[in-house]
Amino acid sequence: MKAEIIAVGSELLTPDRIDTNSLFLTAQLNRLGIEVVRKTIVGDEPNSLQREFRAALELADVIIASGGLGPTEDDITREALAAVLQRPLVQDDEILKDIEAKFQRFGRVMPQINAKQALVPVGATVLPNPRGTAPGLWVEDGKRIVILMPGPPSELEPMFIQQVTPRIEARATGARLFERALRVTGMGESAVDQAIAPIYKGYRDVQTTLLHVPGEIQVYLRLWSVDQAAAENRLEEIVERMRLALGESLFTTKGEEMEQVVARELTWHGATIAVAESCTGGMLGERLTHQPGSSAFFLGGVISYGNELKSGWLDVPKELIDTKGAVSAEAAQAMAASVRRRSGATLGLSITGIAGPTGGTEEKPVGTVHIALADSQGVQEKMFRFPGDRGRIRGQATVAALDMVRRYYLHQSTRNAQ
Amino acid sequence: MKAEIIAVGSELLTPDRIDTNSLFLTAQLNRLGIEVVRKTIVGDEPNSLQREFRAALELADVIIASGGLGPTEDDITREALAAVLQRPLVQDDEILKDIEAKFQRFGRVMPQINAKQALVPVGATVLPNPRGTAPGLWVEDGKRIVILMPGPPSELEPMFIQQVTPRIEARATGARLFERALRVTGMGESAVDQAIAPIYKGYRDVQTTLLHVPGEIQVYLRLWSVDQAAAENRLEEIVERMRLALGESLFTTKGEEMEQVVARELTWHGATIAVAESCTGGMLGERLTHQPGSSAFFLGGVISYGNELKSGWLDVPKELIDTKGAVSAEAAQAMAASVRRRSGATLGLSITGIAGPTGGTEEKPVGTVHIALADSQGVQEKMFRFPGDRGRIRGQATVAALDMVRRYYLHQSTRNAQ
Repeated sequence: MKAEIIAVGSELLTPDRIDTNSLFLTAQLNRLGIEVVRKTIVGDEPNSLQREFRAALELADVIIASGGLGPTEDDITREALAAVLQRPLVQDDEILKDIEAKFQRFGRVMPQINAKQALVPVGATVLPNPRGTAPGLWVEDGKRIVILMPGPPSELEPMFIQQVTPRIEARATGARLFERALRVTGMGESAVDQAIAPIYKGYRDVQTTLLHVPGEIQVYLRLWSVDQAAAENRLEEIVERMRLALGESLFTTKGEEMEQVVARELTWHGATIAVAESCTGGMLGERLTHQPGSSAFFLGGVISYGNELKSGWLDVPKELIDTKGAVSAEAAQAMAASVRRRSGATLGLSITGIAGPTGGTEEKPVGTVHIALADSQGVQEKMFRFPGDRGRIRGQATVAALDMVRRYYLHQSTRNAQ
Repeated sequence: MKAEIIAVGSELLTPDRIDTNSLFLTAQLNRLGIEVVRKTIVGDEPNSLQREFRAALELADVIIASGGLGPTEDDITREALAAVLQRPLVQDDEILKDIEAKFQRFGRVMPQINAKQALVPVGATVLPNPRGTAPGLWVEDGKRIVILMPGPPSELEPMFIQQVTPRIEARATGARLFERALRVTGMGESAVDQAIAPIYKGYRDVQTTLLHVPGEIQVYLRLWSVDQAAAENRLEEIVERMRLALGESLFTTKGEEMEQVVARELTWHGATIAVAESCTGGMLGERLTHQPGSSAFFLGGVISYGNELKSGWLDVPKELIDTKGAVSAEAAQAMAASVRRRSGATLGLSITGIAGPTGGTEEKPVGTVHIALADSQGVQEKMFRFPGDRGRIRGQATVAALDMVRRYYLHQSTRNAQ
């Protein structure tokens, strides 16, 4: 079954409002085996909304519209659906009594305009709303189901769970969504696609989507199936083939964040880490402490933004900064080794670079970043040239630094296995 | 003129992705006098997308589609529009050269699949993309304009401002949108509303929206008008009345970020700052260095996540931690004074708290945060109890710390004026 979600309300077409009900509804529908194929946001305008209902009835098996069920002139969802289905609206005396009772409970008389909320298209089922005055509606038209729900999440969410879920469950055919989220770093989008396209092209039933976010490429595999075991096996098969094709650039097949992967490695090895950051200004520490429980491995760090602190707090010799520059392999190495030694951590991790927009030179353009990792044996260092603006350069540098820790343990286990 | 926004991408139909480009685009379009009448989100499926383009061409004067311009098989926006407009796709040699050059700059050879990004419907204008490989397209069909843009916000936003805005400005007529963005911290949403509702209710032509984000309340004032001077005067009048009603909790009337306000104060006073962070793990330093030019006032800081570093790097006496705890007024004060002294900064700013989810006690529940600010005269300290989860607590603590610097200079200028 396929669903479409329509959010109704002119306020959802302004720059500072976003329809978040659709995220809740999508999660619930997917769990019920229903795929969302389209989401639309329209204003409180009768013609637009009727056009939307007509288009949705051609496309989807289940149509959920949220909002526009209130008592004011702006609230037109009920009327628009009745017009499209060519069903007259009739007053439901039960609803009317219920609304009147709600007002009475607060010592008020129901304003006449609220009577409108008791109008129901002929043949519709009323979905009670214990949290507000606007009831929902369940309307069947042939094989299609149209569900009208109130806009406030505090009313929509319990109504969906209590009233809509059991009704849909009674009809759902059984196919459910199974998925995997692979995340890759250190490769561009087209390189990832070239590596895995020969694989996913062989699995036409699996929907593959690539997504580019700063510092990484995400690969989503989605499969609808009635047979859980078969679906999981099929996805595992693809994942294993993609794992071989992507090599060590693939950092998770379970949708984990890079900092989760790094946290797991550090915890597993009983190791601790300290950071020395220049151009990222604290972003690396922030990422490492994002997840709960990070005090088990993260000791802390130094944000050596100015050069004085690089010398004073991190033992980077002033002459080194004068001759090689604060953005250099040598400075990064000295920062990593010093923060490790001064904190007593197992590993010291450093970033120094030029995030821009100014400060670049021909030799060291904006985007030049040196990252170093120190352990008890020595220091490894790598230079990067990241594209993009200040925010993207800082984000990519942070991911690359975390990734250096991940690869360090990856190679360590390879070495140990040899 | 009326606009429709189409977001393309199957990942935007999952429960964990939301289209946020449309908020940026709506703000920009409104400013240009164009109303957004519909937003749609569709998957990477040729028939759906063609249907969407056809429907939009009937409804809107300007159609903006974001996403689906990448090099992979999934990327079908270009092809779908060409099919709907019945225009063949031809290779644009300029674009191809440009993409090849971009790959070369990073020492790589362009993968063959990227050549697809150089295909252009006949008669289209290419919108260069300095931030990525996918160029945008501006296609006119009779009176209607279709604009295709890349999905990543870091590519879409500058492209819109630099390439699309001037082209639309050359044609737009009539009423334009004028707005003000007020931002308030240290007050709840209902307190803000109670303070300003008597004001905005008197201006029926101005649309007022309140928005709650972690650590602050945003108030948007919007007015459509053909008369720029009259609109600006009217908005200024409201802003001045709201300024009186909100007092010093109002930190900007120009939509600035808190760190921009703090950067301005520090720069104005020729002051420098260093930070000492515990539960925020680097977030405060990250915020202070978010904007370019922060090296003028930000020296650096210490992330003293473990207690050993609070003593070893920040002179917080071990006995103080043992008796008062690492999350205490005394610890925060010692951290701020120490980081100031050790860095040589004008101000030292510290955060220590319990971000959770574990670590809370009856006396110091999760959300307890102490923030201190040291100058040459002494240290001020404030305790907070922030609601919400780990992420929200850390975010609120960071904003509150920045706000302490802002209020410090506010009171200093009040003192000086007396």
